[in-house]
Amino acid sequence: MRVDGKPTRTIWPDADGRILIIDQTRLPHEFVVGELNTLADAAAAIKDMKVRGAPLIGITAAYGLALAMRQDPSDAGLDAASAALAATRPTAVNLAWALATMKDYLRPLPPAARHAAALAQAGELAEADVALCAAIGDHGLALIRKIAERKQGGAVNILTHCNAGWLATVDWGTASAPIYKAHEAGIPVHVFVDETRPRNQGAALTAWELGQEGISHQVIVDNAGGHLMQHGEIDLVIVGTDRTTAAGDVCNKIGTYLKALAAKDNGVPFYVAAPSPSIDFSLSDGVKEIPIEARGEREVTHMRGMTEDGRIETVRLTPKGSPAANPGFDVTPARLVTGLITERGVIKAEREALAAAFPERVAQIQYPGGTDD
Amino acid sequence: MRVDGKPTRTIWPDADGRILIIDQTRLPHEFVVGELNTLADAAAAIKDMKVRGAPLIGITAAYGLALAMRQDPSDAGLDAASAALAATRPTAVNLAWALATMKDYLRPLPPAARHAAALAQAGELAEADVALCAAIGDHGLALIRKIAERKQGGAVNILTHCNAGWLATVDWGTASAPIYKAHEAGIPVHVFVDETRPRNQGAALTAWELGQEGISHQVIVDNAGGHLMQHGEIDLVIVGTDRTTAAGDVCNKIGTYLKALAAKDNGVPFYVAAPSPSIDFSLSDGVKEIPIEARGEREVTHMRGMTEDGRIETVRLTPKGSPAANPGFDVTPARLVTGLITERGVIKAEREALAAAFPERVAQIQYPGGTDD
Repeated sequence: MRVDGKPTRTIWPDADGRILIIDQTRLPHEFVVGELNTLADAAAAIKDMKVRGAPLIGITAAYGLALAMRQDPSDAGLDAASAALAATRPTAVNLAWALATMKDYLRPLPPAARHAAALAQAGELAEADVALCAAIGDHGLALIRKIAERKQGGAVNILTHCNAGWLATVDWGTASAPIYKAHEAGIPVHVFVDETRPRNQGAALTAWELGQEGISHQVIVDNAGGHLMQHGEIDLVIVGTDRTTAAGDVCNKIGTYLKALAAKDNGVPFYVAAPSPSIDFSLSDGVKEIPIEARGEREVTHMRGMTEDGRIETVRLTPKGSPAANPGFDVTPARLVTGLITERGVIKAEREALAAAFPERVAQIQYPGGTDD
Repeated sequence: MRVDGKPTRTIWPDADGRILIIDQTRLPHEFVVGELNTLADAAAAIKDMKVRGAPLIGITAAYGLALAMRQDPSDAGLDAASAALAATRPTAVNLAWALATMKDYLRPLPPAARHAAALAQAGELAEADVALCAAIGDHGLALIRKIAERKQGGAVNILTHCNAGWLATVDWGTASAPIYKAHEAGIPVHVFVDETRPRNQGAALTAWELGQEGISHQVIVDNAGGHLMQHGEIDLVIVGTDRTTAAGDVCNKIGTYLKALAAKDNGVPFYVAAPSPSIDFSLSDGVKEIPIEARGEREVTHMRGMTEDGRIETVRLTPKGSPAANPGFDVTPARLVTGLITERGVIKAEREALAAAFPERVAQIQYPGGTDD
């Protein structure tokens, strides 16, 4: 998508084999392009969250292996680099998947060929991610187009939570892809951007993306969505997902469940942009089965931003001595989900529908017993 | 309630006729007692939100009239002072009510008697507010006690939103009163404090109150309550109300509705501490009839707090140029409310039950036609 009017991706190689990234820790206040020259640079970029979002983490790791192959293309070098990158964000599924894919591809090649091959392969993984997001965008566009036709020229009002935008992927994003596709198709859209406490990915990243793309939007606090829905100000909700169960339960950024409840209560369609790699066919009941990360208190008690005179400061919001609890994600039960926007179309959040859409994925699952519930 | 271990109210007169207040704009980082010597001081304290919360605003206005009577006890002085105070927060119902009550009481008195009489009358209004809150506390205590008995010694986990604490009243608070009464009765309680964006009254004020009282608590982001309820970590919700309809709909700080939806979805009791003056028997359908204030964007885009080295700073969270929307309140339909904790007991959030509990209030209402729906 565009930055200062110029088409940009979140990660790209330059002619000299360096890898360039958008340093997302500096957004939304500064747009800074970071340079990755070594394995250590790539590992630090992931660990320090200069790049974030499951798809982008995977692609960064793939490029990180390519940088490592320039330094030491031996088998030992490949294993050491892969281990170093895997340790940066141990719970990221895409990271492990990207590293395994790259290693399987590089291992049979002679060391001298590995650097160039790794660079090409990482590029292919990046293109595949772009294609997947674009497909989600096209399927979501059809939903938005239908609402636009009903509204006869009035803007389609969309609520989104957190950042499932292009900054979390290589391009397009997941939840944001239908919005960008609609905007490109000339459909008037207005986006209500949930701030998304505690890390403010909505207020900082999604708002920045939309602003750069020239899309009408307003930031709202996470408390406001229900009120807007009560008053007919939201036509549909589109959110992302970190993990989706075989039954269609959606684990996503904390607070997603509350918006889904409000959507249900007000008859507002609630869609989840769900790339099929996010679907874990070994899981059924998301609330019972998905462990939720308890994150640090400081994310709740402190906040970072820019002062009037341009300094970045971190301030404490709470009284000294008041502890905080910080569950990072919640699970939205499938009964609240209108549909999952996947790269193969919009699928009902139901076991049978998902299994029919991704039969090759279901076949991989070994059920532990006679029933999986 | 206590501050640094010492019983304290939010407003009190000293022996010299000065009025002392807690300067709430300095909380939670500093505890500062402010001094009101003149009508202008009182008006500024309300306008600048050094005092806030409908009940406390009313009492401060009453004391402000007393200060004015020391300066100019004439009829003209009374009218001018009342007008000046009424203009500080034009939409505050308690403010208008307290001023009317004071004026009606003072007008028949000879000017020379008005200062002492006003001081005494303001004191009586303050005591009446304390008694009302204490009664709400006692009725709410019974609810908490029942849950505590079921939990056999385990802490009762309570979720609250915004600050309907003693800082919003003279003492006890409304939603907080049952919690303080339970703590005093030796019932173990743990309070999950919604941060309450955008003004952070939970993170700043409720957390401070609970900390001073030595009550176990954790601040959470407004997104987290639904997840906690899904996992059985909340035994009941108690919130305040700014305005309650004859049918039991509750207009309260933005986000209250989302928590009520989650409570309903998880079978968690959702109680509203509703002093009867908050009930407007002329209103039926809160969502349709109550206009919601659109507040300034800056409350969403900026945040104030304390830096590590003790400076108070305001930082911007959003990209430059991203607009915000900021509805201040939402309406929770009566169907989601388990009960209203009033000074006359816990009442069902239903027209008939409320009418039976407050017959003298219903009698005041002139219905516009044959039906009021």
